[in-house]
Amino acid sequence: MAAPRAWAVVAGVGPGTGASVARKFAQSYSVALLARNPSNYEPIVKEINNGGGHAIGISTDTSDGGSVANAFKQIKEQIGGQGKLVAAVYNVGGRFIRKPFLELSEGEFESGWEANGRGAFHFSQQVIPLLLDAVEASNYPPTLIFTSATAAMKGSALCASFATGKFAMRALAQSLAREFGPKGIHVNHAIIDGVIDIERTKEWLKDAGPDAKIKPEAIADTYWWIHTQPRTCFTNEIDIRPAVEKW
Amino acid sequence: MAAPRAWAVVAGVGPGTGASVARKFAQSYSVALLARNPSNYEPIVKEINNGGGHAIGISTDTSDGGSVANAFKQIKEQIGGQGKLVAAVYNVGGRFIRKPFLELSEGEFESGWEANGRGAFHFSQQVIPLLLDAVEASNYPPTLIFTSATAAMKGSALCASFATGKFAMRALAQSLAREFGPKGIHVNHAIIDGVIDIERTKEWLKDAGPDAKIKPEAIADTYWWIHTQPRTCFTNEIDIRPAVEKW
Amino acid sequence: MAAPRAWAVVAGVGPGTGASVARKFAQSYSVALLARNPSNYEPIVKEINNGGGHAIGISTDTSDGGSVANAFKQIKEQIGGQGKLVAAVYNVGGRFIRKPFLELSEGEFESGWEANGRGAFHFSQQVIPLLLDAVEASNYPPTLIFTSATAAMKGSALCASFATGKFAMRALAQSLAREFGPKGIHVNHAIIDGVIDIERTKEWLKDAGPDAKIKPEAIADTYWWIHTQPRTCFTNEIDIRPAVEKW
Amino acid sequence: MAAPRAWAVVAGVGPGTGASVARKFAQSYSVALLARNPSNYEPIVKEINNGGGHAIGISTDTSDGGSVANAFKQIKEQIGGQGKLVAAVYNVGGRFIRKPFLELSEGEFESGWEANGRGAFHFSQQVIPLLLDAVEASNYPPTLIFTSATAAMKGSALCASFATGKFAMRALAQSLAREFGPKGIHVNHAIIDGVIDIERTKEWLKDAGPDAKIKPEAIADTYWWIHTQPRTCFTNEIDIRPAVEKW
Repeated sequence: MAAPRAWAVVAGVGPGTGASVARKFAQSYSVALLARNPSNYEPIVKEINNGGGHAIGISTDTSDGGSVANAFKQIKEQIGGQGKLVAAVYNVGGRFIRKPFLELSEGEFESGWEANGRGAFHFSQQVIPLLLDAVEASNYPPTLIFTSATAAMKGSALCASFATGKFAMRALAQSLAREFGPKGIHVNHAIIDGVIDIERTKEWLKDAGPDAKIKPEAIADTYWWIHTQPRTCFTNEIDIRPAVEKW
Repeated sequence: MAAPRAWAVVAGVGPGTGASVARKFAQSYSVALLARNPSNYEPIVKEINNGGGHAIGISTDTSDGGSVANAFKQIKEQIGGQGKLVAAVYNVGGRFIRKPFLELSEGEFESGWEANGRGAFHFSQQVIPLLLDAVEASNYPPTLIFTSATAAMKGSALCASFATGKFAMRALAQSLAREFGPKGIHVNHAIIDGVIDIERTKEWLKDAGPDAKIKPEAIADTYWWIHTQPRTCFTNEIDIRPAVEKW
Repeated sequence: MAAPRAWAVVAGVGPGTGASVARKFAQSYSVALLARNPSNYEPIVKEINNGGGHAIGISTDTSDGGSVANAFKQIKEQIGGQGKLVAAVYNVGGRFIRKPFLELSEGEFESGWEANGRGAFHFSQQVIPLLLDAVEASNYPPTLIFTSATAAMKGSALCASFATGKFAMRALAQSLAREFGPKGIHVNHAIIDGVIDIERTKEWLKDAGPDAKIKPEAIADTYWWIHTQPRTCFTNEIDIRPAVEKW
Repeated sequence: MAAPRAWAVVAGVGPGTGASVARKFAQSYSVALLARNPSNYEPIVKEINNGGGHAIGISTDTSDGGSVANAFKQIKEQIGGQGKLVAAVYNVGGRFIRKPFLELSEGEFESGWEANGRGAFHFSQQVIPLLLDAVEASNYPPTLIFTSATAAMKGSALCASFATGKFAMRALAQSLAREFGPKGIHVNHAIIDGVIDIERTKEWLKDAGPDAKIKPEAIADTYWWIHTQPRTCFTNEIDIRPAVEKW
């Protein structure tokens, strides 16, 4: 497939995983980058376009069905009649709220679901028809990856909002993998177990050695590798953690 | 504790598990029974009161924080200054929707969360302060049980709505167990794996033998038994299935 | 079923869980108690018989098929033509070895399997035919319970021997539950997650409060309750932990 | 690291996964291939050496500690003072026995453990010191991969032997990952969920489409990719299945 006509979309683009994934997939595809706040995608859009790649950014609130529909209307116009969407990464995590349960407001509790459940639903409903449409033409099986977390596996104290959201995301990923795997779409739930090494976490884990935080570039490499797995060999759930992580 | 002053509350009372649980706990406690539609709790409220027990019913929409707050205002008035709430069962499951993912409306998808996530949140925020208040006085550790399902463990194809809801419920139950167990509250996530034997399922599994469906009375006995476990021996997750069930 | 003709067998009887389980089941059944060293079962055999119950003890090495066969030859003679074996508890855990992997001898590594895998196999092969034979006559579904541990769910560092044994025990319990559940036998894998409160652990967790250790009597009550669950409502895996336990 | 001095070892080399993994790793490393029966490794040893790579074969019974020690004595001689062992794959699965539990002989039951537990222990004890010795010098983190199966996650009826073995293997892999990850070794438990596409399975799943079986080359690519993950981003468990597989 010629590069200009194959597209990837990444929702939840900030300075960490999202930007790295965008950069990686932009080596092979045009990329559409979604974030609520344009300041989150503008630097990486510019960087990719300046570097000879092709990126667009669209301000999108994934928890709002209309906003997601509008974003995909633009994406489809950009892709045009000859292009295909062959990869989609849902990287929206929402706020991590750590708080005694009885102090959680409804809005705080609900925020985990909004980002990880409802937003993932809207995104999936928009991308899956496009991915299905690419099954025959794509070099690699069209791929839908959800960025998840340890909280998808264990509901810890004080983390009810994030854990309910991530558990729900895992359920959605499993359900979609089982429905659309046989139709040729590769769905993966990626459990990122550890601190991601970004500007905001610069001061974290400083005593734990040089490799105590997960490099976002390594996550991006993993996602790309998952995308390239053939139909005969899909990985539907993957865990990623630093060598030194306790788990 | 004298029977008249110890209370249990059951949310999601219909003809199956809810009524059986109400009947069982009403042998020892006054019971407050919640359902959206009064026709769901009226028969069992009448039955318990006619049989010498004590029950009240309150029309409640658990997905609506105001409705739940209003129900508990009434419950607290009934309990009065001397009573204690010592057991709570969240038995709201919502609709089971089996449908291709791309045909799910936002409302259909969201309904799993509304019943199993948001509703469980509202209920938990109201009951936990009451249960905490009963820790010293109660014969048995104050107990909060969530009725869940196999869908809490596996996201099957076509079941994205129900599975996301039940996964979220499991996350909530784990988070609450870890936060409030050390404070003396027994939180349990009960995985009901099989068809429940009620009027509506009368024609189901007719060829599978007399014990192929779960008797709601047996679920109620299990819930009561969980409630009576001492602080030194809590069960935080239990599975229940007929002997003949495939799993 | 008249008490004198219904039997339970407990393998792995020492001063903790085994003795408590024996005491509990001896309230309803004759009990056969197995341990390698007679000094482990003699006190509880004497106690039960002095208290009006009926117990026998048989020195048995469960890792040795011949020894187990010989024990069951004696048990069958005791049960006689009219009795039935209706409950069996495999409570052998073996040594808990915590050691750097590279320092484990083959014998040390293998000991986890010997107790939890091979021993459970021998015991199961002997008891299952007897339990099957009791399905029609027994008040409660004939029951086979395996005492397991957190190590069945997580392979921690330095615990390779115990974890491989307990994982294997869980696999065996699941396989047996799925094969013999439909034939009327209730198989349960009991995850004991915490320190058991016995003489040997008297000094442990002294600062963690009065309920920080699991009372063996509470485990015995749980096992008895599992045994009484009807065919329509089997629990195949249960976790047990103190309210204050981290998990 | 110069190719001639970096080595990989693969235990359990037959015509399927083992040969493909050998071929893949031989593109970068010298490889030592172990199998009980030399006829299993001889074709691939010859193929690799004829193709410009470097392979040796050693007849080894992994369930026998002496045999494994002897094999590694030869491997260490071949590696010499300047080489390093940087990757190890334990691909021994043993017989898959599907049989009613009560018909299993002790030898049949035990065979699952022998291949997946005891054999994995012997192999791990020999390779881990060599991998530790390579941490500083190796391009990629020294890697130990265990080929596992769905049976590591679920104990099905009639599969007690295989399931106990694979559960034990998973426990061992987790324990080793947690002990040796912080020391720089990447341990992975690979759940192969499906039929592998080899000569022996040629007639299987013929109606399920061209991609219904897992290509061993795809497994080998996955293993190699795991090997290349950096210290900051280890995957400790991976599942692999065909797009059309039910799970």
